[in-house]
Parts: sequence; C-alpha cells; structure tokens
Amino acid sequence: MLNIAVVGTQANSWINELRVARPQDRFEADGTWDDPEIVTAAVISVPSADALHKYERLAFVQSLWMGVDGILGDQRFASHLSLARMVDPGMPISMGETVAAHVLWAHRYGDVYQRNQTAHLWRDEAQPLAARRTVTVLGLGELGSHCARVLRMLGFRVAGWSRSGSSIDDIAVTRDLSEALAHGEIVVNLLPLTPQTREILNADAFSKMPRGAVVINVGRGAHIVDQDLLDALDAGQIRHAVLDVFNGEPLAPDHPYWSHSHVTVTPHVAADSMPETCIPVIAENLRRFDEGEPPLHLVDRGRGY
Amino acid sequence: MLNIAVVGTQANSWINELRVARPQDRFEADGTWDDPEIVTAAVISVPSADALHKYERLAFVQSLWMGVDGILGDQRFASHLSLARMVDPGMPISMGETVAAHVLWAHRYGDVYQRNQTAHLWRDEAQPLAARRTVTVLGLGELGSHCARVLRMLGFRVAGWSRSGSSIDDIAVTRDLSEALAHGEIVVNLLPLTPQTREILNADAFSKMPRGAVVINVGRGAHIVDQDLLDALDAGQIRHAVLDVFNGEPLAPDHPYWSHSHVTVTPHVAADSMPETCIPVIAENLRRFDEGEPPLHLVDRGRGY
Repeated sequence: MLNIAVVGTQANSWINELRVARPQDRFEADGTWDDPEIVTAAVISVPSADALHKYERLAFVQSLWMGVDGILGDQRFASHLSLARMVDPGMPISMGETVAAHVLWAHRYGDVYQRNQTAHLWRDEAQPLAARRTVTVLGLGELGSHCARVLRMLGFRVAGWSRSGSSIDDIAVTRDLSEALAHGEIVVNLLPLTPQTREILNADAFSKMPRGAVVINVGRGAHIVDQDLLDALDAGQIRHAVLDVFNGEPLAPDHPYWSHSHVTVTPHVAADSMPETCIPVIAENLRRFDEGEPPLHLVDRGRGY
Repeated sequence: MLNIAVVGTQANSWINELRVARPQDRFEADGTWDDPEIVTAAVISVPSADALHKYERLAFVQSLWMGVDGILGDQRFASHLSLARMVDPGMPISMGETVAAHVLWAHRYGDVYQRNQTAHLWRDEAQPLAARRTVTVLGLGELGSHCARVLRMLGFRVAGWSRSGSSIDDIAVTRDLSEALAHGEIVVNLLPLTPQTREILNADAFSKMPRGAVVINVGRGAHIVDQDLLDALDAGQIRHAVLDVFNGEPLAPDHPYWSHSHVTVTPHVAADSMPETCIPVIAENLRRFDEGEPPLHLVDRGRGY
C-alpha cells in the first residue's frame, strides 16, 4: 500500500477516480495528511514543487502536466526524486484540435475579419488554399508530431523543426531554425521549455519569419520575449499572435496583450489532462513504483523533459 | 466561333484566362459590345440577370457562382435560356477549410474566449473532445457532403439533413429537420436557396437546437430570419452566430450584426470560385454548347438549383 498526496486545485475529483483505479492505496489531498512523513508518492497538477517539501520520505512524483519545467526549476526539488511527466493519450488529440482550430482560423483570415468587423468594414482578402500555405511547427515531440500530421491531413504544407532533427513521415523536418522560420506563414510553438528553448521566440526569430506571419504559442510563455513580440506586432512584421500561455499566469488584468487588437488570449486551455485517459497511466505508474519497476515517462533532467 | 459576354467586376482577369483556354472564341466584357445581337453566350459572376437582357440572341449562360437564386429570381430571365451553375472542383476544398475553421473555433470556445478577452477575464470552459460533439450539417450537396466528411475526419459526430434524405457513407442522415436540429450543438447551413428553404432558420428552428448552440451560415442570407436570430442570441438560446452571407450585401454599415458581441461577420468569403480550377470547367461547357452537346451542371428550374 502506498500513501499518496494529491496536489492541485482539482485534487478531490482526481482522488475519487484514483481510489477506484487503485483501491489498495491511500490517496489524500495535500494539506490533509496528519503524518506527512509516511507519504512516499505524489500526484501533482500545479507547475511548482512548493507543496512537496513537507513530504520527507517522498520518492516518486507523477505530474499531471506534460511540461515539468516549473517543478524542475525549483532548486529545492531533490535530485534523488523520480519525476514522471504526464503523457496522456487523450492530450495529443485535444492539442491537435486546438492547433487545427487556430491554424485554420489564421489561414482563413479570422483575425483580419475580426478587426474589420470592429470597423464595420466589408472587405475580402485574397485567399489561397491550404495546399499553398506553409505552417511551421516548432517541436516534434508527442504533441508536435501529432499536430503536424493533423495539419498535413487538412492539406497544409508543414515544415517541422526540432533540435534533434528527427524525421517524421511525409513532413519536411530541418534542424536549421532560420530556415524553418523563413517558411512559416503560420508558426506553431510546441517546444518543451528548456534552457536552450527559453526566449527562442525573440526579435531575431520574428525578423526571420515572412512579413505578416501569424504566431501561435501553445508551448510555454517563457518561449516568447513579450516586448519583442509586441514590437513585431506593432511594426506589422507579425500580423497576429494567438497566445495560450504566458510569463505569469493567470495573465495580469492590466497586461497589454488583453487589449491588443492583434493578439488573441486564451487562458491556458490548449490541452488539459483528462481523467478518463490519464487515470490508467497514473495507475500503471503507481503499480510500477510500488513493485520496484521503473515508471513510464520519467523526466531526463539533463534534457529537461 | 462563339461571341461571349463576360459580366462582373473582375471581368478582365477572367477574360485573359478564358482567351488562353478557348482561343477560337471571342470574349469581351459586358458593356463593350457594339453589336450585342451577335452574343450567344455569357459568363456571369454577379447574382443578377440585369445585364443579360440586352443580348437578344443569348442562348447559354454560365454562372461563376454555385448559387443561382439571384438569376432565377429575375422575372425577365427568359425560360428558354440554358443556365449552368459553377461546380468548381476547388470550391468544396475551400468551403471545407472554412467550415472546419469555424466549427473548430466554436468547438474550442473561440467566441467565449474572445468575449472574455474583452473583459480581461481569465476563465476556462469545460472542453469535450470532438468525438463528443455533434455538428449538424444542413444540405448535403457537393459542398455539404464534402464538409460533412471533413468534419468526420476531424473526429466530430456529424448529423446530416437534406430534403431528399440521400445517405452519405459513415454519416447519419435524416429527413426530419427537427431531429437534426435537436442534435446540433454546432449547426452549419449549406442549403441551396429555394422557396422551400427560404427563412428555414427562424425562431422555431432556433428553439429546437440545444441551448447554447452555435449557428454557422455559409449558405445564403435569406435562409435566416435576422430578427429571430437576434432574439435567440439575446436570449442565450444561440450562443454565437458566424455569418458569411446576408440579406443585403455588402452588409449595411449600421446593421446590428456588426457590433453584436455574439456575432462574427465575414464578407461572403467562405468559398470563392478560383480561376485555376474553374477555367477548365467553363471551357468544357463552352465546347459543349458550341458543338450542340448538353452543358454540365445545368440548373433544374423546378428544383431551383
């Protein structure tokens, strides 16, 4: 039997489903343990390790998020702890729907018509088919490669970039970031956040994209240098930005993104972990931890994801 | 050799391409013929027969639009004339991209987040996958059936309605309009405009949709009773409407749709006829007319399309 702390705002709904999946274990919400020293595993849905320090015998942490940069970035997150990130089989589907929605919306000039509507202006844009539109996908992990395939299925030309340059069937992949950006009329960021990718979308990157490109950020807020993006939007180099993630969430009410006519703000909803598809993954990892087997999707600290 | 009048605002660009495709014929823009009585065919890209009355020997009219209700509705449009509508092989692709864009945007709550952004409000919606979302497609002609298949490919549940009830592989088709509307969390209108379908989206229809449904009209403006839609939006019965077509185009600058926070206006751009894919169709129909063969895609006046 494992004693498992569940950390996060929706802890109780997760606990109900976890108890069904692993009736042999004890699941309690963070903050409700009288004896935190008996806790050896945690399931966590916040991007911070703050809550974990009180569990002195903690050995295994299962994140409910795919991105674990917030936990790894905590200096007090002990190096002996095993950390597994969530690879939710439902999440690529959800992200694929979101990315398809934003890319098609930009492709059919949804942002331009939204601004024109504000001005009561009836004016059409010359509209190419998807087959003549290149979308660049930055990052080709589980999410990026799935999204690239969905965009191909919709008829887009897709250019992929990853640091490893690993190839995907039917999709042109380059390791040359400048080349990838130069082709991207629409650029989708799905990179993991690591020291190498932090602030990768900066003034230099925006200047390499075709004039009037659209940037869609469903990675992490820290991939973007906010002032550089605002400058590129105001200069018309970037036509529009769809931003789901931010440096500081929730986005401050007075942040300039909220009222910028060339920015779409969504509240970090591109892809949530869904209990129906996550619970079996968590249960399997707790079984592995309990029986001394290596858990799935352990984070490589050197790589950062 | 045929003498052919080309009617419409973009006449000269069409004429240039038509002359390459049919060098044996004479193409001139409407209004530039000194001898209109020698004209026997017309290529027309406006929804009205006004310009045609001066051509006394006219026998064949090729519309560049799929919808020919404006021409058929002209009482002076002589009943002996052959009228072909455009079935542009590129148009279903274009319409499929547009419908996918609008449906995915509504599915991922793009309209809700747009309104929340105006209020600087950070709040997420419970998000189902496409596999748990039903989209109703009204009209299953060339465009509607293609769009239904694209939506199926994206993972949506699709319910189709057509007056004939003709079936499409893998898509549930009904002849019961009430049933089709009752399932439609997102309703896409792609019906032809006929006396039977005019004002089909009225208060009664809106009341049959699930509360909070989204209406996407890429058919004709006259399919909708505007005041009924405004009432349904204001009552919250319809969450949002994406409107590409209107009763009166361009939409009047003071029309309430422009400034309604639950309406998206686009300027009749869901799918344009593209010369690259239309020219071969027009050339083939002119050859058939010239050689006494029946042209393709002749309009059935009884059916209205």
